[in-house]
Amino acid sequence: MKKNMENYVFHAYTKMLFGKNQIDQLPEVMNDYGKTVLLVYGGGSIKKNGIYDKVYTLLKGWNIIELSGVEPNPRITTVREGVRLCKENNVDVILAVGGGSTLDCSKVIAAGHYYDNDPWDLVLDGSLITKALPLVTILTLAATGSEMNKNAVISNLETNEKFGTASKLVIPQASILDPTYLFTLPAIQTAAGTADIMSHIFEAYFGKVKDAYIQDSFSEGILKACIKYCKIALKEPENYEARANLMWASSMALNGLTGSGKSHAWTCHPIEHELSAFYDITHGVGLAIVTPRWMRYILNDDTVEQFATYGHNVWDLPMEEDKFEVAHKAIDKTEEFFKEIGIPMTLKEVGIDDSKLDIMAEKAVRFGGLGDAFVSLTKEDVVNILKDCL
Amino acid sequence: MKKNMENYVFHAYTKMLFGKNQIDQLPEVMNDYGKTVLLVYGGGSIKKNGIYDKVYTLLKGWNIIELSGVEPNPRITTVREGVRLCKENNVDVILAVGGGSTLDCSKVIAAGHYYDNDPWDLVLDGSLITKALPLVTILTLAATGSEMNKNAVISNLETNEKFGTASKLVIPQASILDPTYLFTLPAIQTAAGTADIMSHIFEAYFGKVKDAYIQDSFSEGILKACIKYCKIALKEPENYEARANLMWASSMALNGLTGSGKSHAWTCHPIEHELSAFYDITHGVGLAIVTPRWMRYILNDDTVEQFATYGHNVWDLPMEEDKFEVAHKAIDKTEEFFKEIGIPMTLKEVGIDDSKLDIMAEKAVRFGGLGDAFVSLTKEDVVNILKDCL
Repeated sequence: MKKNMENYVFHAYTKMLFGKNQIDQLPEVMNDYGKTVLLVYGGGSIKKNGIYDKVYTLLKGWNIIELSGVEPNPRITTVREGVRLCKENNVDVILAVGGGSTLDCSKVIAAGHYYDNDPWDLVLDGSLITKALPLVTILTLAATGSEMNKNAVISNLETNEKFGTASKLVIPQASILDPTYLFTLPAIQTAAGTADIMSHIFEAYFGKVKDAYIQDSFSEGILKACIKYCKIALKEPENYEARANLMWASSMALNGLTGSGKSHAWTCHPIEHELSAFYDITHGVGLAIVTPRWMRYILNDDTVEQFATYGHNVWDLPMEEDKFEVAHKAIDKTEEFFKEIGIPMTLKEVGIDDSKLDIMAEKAVRFGGLGDAFVSLTKEDVVNILKDCL
Repeated sequence: MKKNMENYVFHAYTKMLFGKNQIDQLPEVMNDYGKTVLLVYGGGSIKKNGIYDKVYTLLKGWNIIELSGVEPNPRITTVREGVRLCKENNVDVILAVGGGSTLDCSKVIAAGHYYDNDPWDLVLDGSLITKALPLVTILTLAATGSEMNKNAVISNLETNEKFGTASKLVIPQASILDPTYLFTLPAIQTAAGTADIMSHIFEAYFGKVKDAYIQDSFSEGILKACIKYCKIALKEPENYEARANLMWASSMALNGLTGSGKSHAWTCHPIEHELSAFYDITHGVGLAIVTPRWMRYILNDDTVEQFATYGHNVWDLPMEEDKFEVAHKAIDKTEEFFKEIGIPMTLKEVGIDDSKLDIMAEKAVRFGGLGDAFVSLTKEDVVNILKDCL
C-alpha cells in the first residue's frame, strides 16, 4: 500500500503575531483593510477576560458592528445573520475573537458577503467561494488551527448536517496568538482542544505515503508537545511555556506542514462530525473517543509498521521484534492519555446510545469519502468502530 | 543562561509549488505580475538541464530580459547591473532560476529597483528597503532557504565584505521546487548545501531560549532528514525521496519555523562570511569546517545539556550519566558526517592559511555581533576557533 509523496502547494500566508500583548499590534494590522469591522465572538468569555474592552480601546475610530453568540458548533443560521450584517453595513473586514467555532463561522461569513445565494451552498461546495472579505483573528483556544488555514466547519441542526468546507480565499490575513488568553480556559476545553490538535496530526500521519519524512517528523514533534504540555497546562493553568507550545501546536498541526503531499481522505473527523451533527457534543471529545478505537480497528499486517513507528517515535516505546506488541502499546497509551487529561472516553458518558449508529455511519462514509481513507472503511466498519466506543 | 521564548511574528507567505513538473504552473504564477520579466540565473547549468528552454516555452508572449552569470558568492557589481536592467526596461517582475546566490542577488535587485542610490546601501541596512519588485523563483539547489525567506547575502570583493541583509518585502511571492532538478548536481554541491541547511538549524537550535519545544523538535526533524537523505542522494543522485526531503528541508530550515522566538546573534555564519569574503570559498564548505570546532569551543557546564540533548535526539545516542561524554560524541558525529559526505574539513584544503585570521576574526565579531551570540565570543575566541580549523 506504499505510495510516493504527491505534488503539493503549500501556501500558509497568514501573518502570525505570537506572544504576550501582541494584541497591541491590532490597529496596525487592521489599518490595511478599511474602517468598518464586523466583530464576531461567542459567549461572554471575551468580556470577562478583558479582550472585548481592549479591542474597543485599540480600535477607537473604527466603526464596529457586532455578531455575538456564535455556538460551539457554529450554525448556518449564525452565518446567515453575519452575512446580513456585512451586506447591510458595507463591512470592510471581519475581526473574529474566539476559538475555532468563531473563526470558522467568520470564514463563511467573509465568503458569504460576496455570494448572492444561501451561504449553506458554500459549506457544501467550497469551490463556489470566489471572493471573501479579509479576516483577522484573535485566538482564545488552541485546537482547530483555523487561525492559519483554509478550513471551516459549519452545522445545520435542522438537517443534522455538519460539514467542512475550504477555500484559500478565507485563510486569515493575520492572527494574534497570546498564550496568556488560554490561562482561564476550563480544563475540558484545554483537553478537548489538545485532542483536536492531535487528531489533525493523526489524520495525515497515518497514510499511504511513506516518504514524507519532514512532514512526519514535524507531526511527531507536535504530538510530543501536545502530550507533554497538555498535562502541565491542566496542573498549572498559567504556565506560559505549556500554553505557548499548545497554542503554536494548534496552528502548526493544520496549516499544511504535516499533511502536504499526503492527500488521502480523513477518517475520525467525518465520523465525529456525525456525532456532533446529531448530538451537538464537543468536537475534541468526540475525536478522542473515536481515535483509539479506530486505531485498533484498522491495525493489521499492512498498518502495523506505522503504528509501531508511532509508538517508538512519539511514546518512546522500545522497538520490539513483535511489531504488533509495540503498536498495541502505542494505541493503549493514546487512550490512557485522553483519559488522563479528563476526557470522557465512552459515547454513553456524552449521552449517545446505539439508536443512531447506522445513520451516522452511513453519512460518515458517504460524505467523508471513507472508501479513500488510509484504511478504506464501509458503513459496517464504522458501525463496528462506534459500537466499540459505546 | 535560560531565557523564555520571545514574542515573534511568523509570516512565511511564499506560495510553494512542490513536486515534479510544477514548472508547468509558471505562466499562471507569473500572470499576476505583468509581462516584462527580468530572468536572473547563474552559469550555464539551467541551459544544460532544460529549464532555460522550458521557461521560454512557457512564457511565450512575455518580454524577457536576461541577467546571467550570477556568481556563487553573488557580487554587488552584478546587483548593480540587474538594477540597471530593471530600470531601463521597466521590469514588472523578477524570475530567479538557480540556487541561493541567484535568489539573493535577485532580492537586492528587486529592492534596488525602487532605490535611488547605490544598492550596496541596502545590503548594509535592510531597513532602507521600502518597496520591491515581486520575485518568483525556480530552485535548483537545496541550501540557503532563500526561496522562502527575507534574507540575502551579497559580497563586495573590492572591500572584502560579505554581508547579509533582510526585508519582509523581498520574500518571494512564489517558488517552484522540483526535486528532479537536483538529480544532476555535483556531489560537492549536494553536500555543501546540506551543510548550509544544517547550519541554519544549528544557529537557532543552540540558544538561550529553552522552552520553544515545537521549534526545537522541528529542528531535530530537519537535521535527521539531512543526515539520512544527504548520504542517500550522494549514492543515488536520482533518488526522488532523498532529493524531495532535502529540498523541503532547505525551505523549512530558514523560513522562521525553527528560529521564531529565539532571536540571538548567529555565530558560524558571520565567521564563514569572512572566510568567503576574503577567499571566495563555498559557503556550505566554510560552515561545515567551522561548525564542529565552534561546538567544541563553546562546550562547557552551561551548554553541555543542550549538546547532550542534540546527541540524544538527533544522533540517537543513549543518554548517559556523563553529559559531556554524550556531547562530545555528538560533536564528533557531526564532524564525521561532514567528512563522510565529502566536504574538505580543514581550512588548508580550501586554500586558507593563518595569515588573515586576525582581521577575519575581528570583522566577524564586529559585524556579526558575536558578543550577543548563544555563547558570547571575542575576537580572540574566533581566532582560536579558526586555528582549530586550520
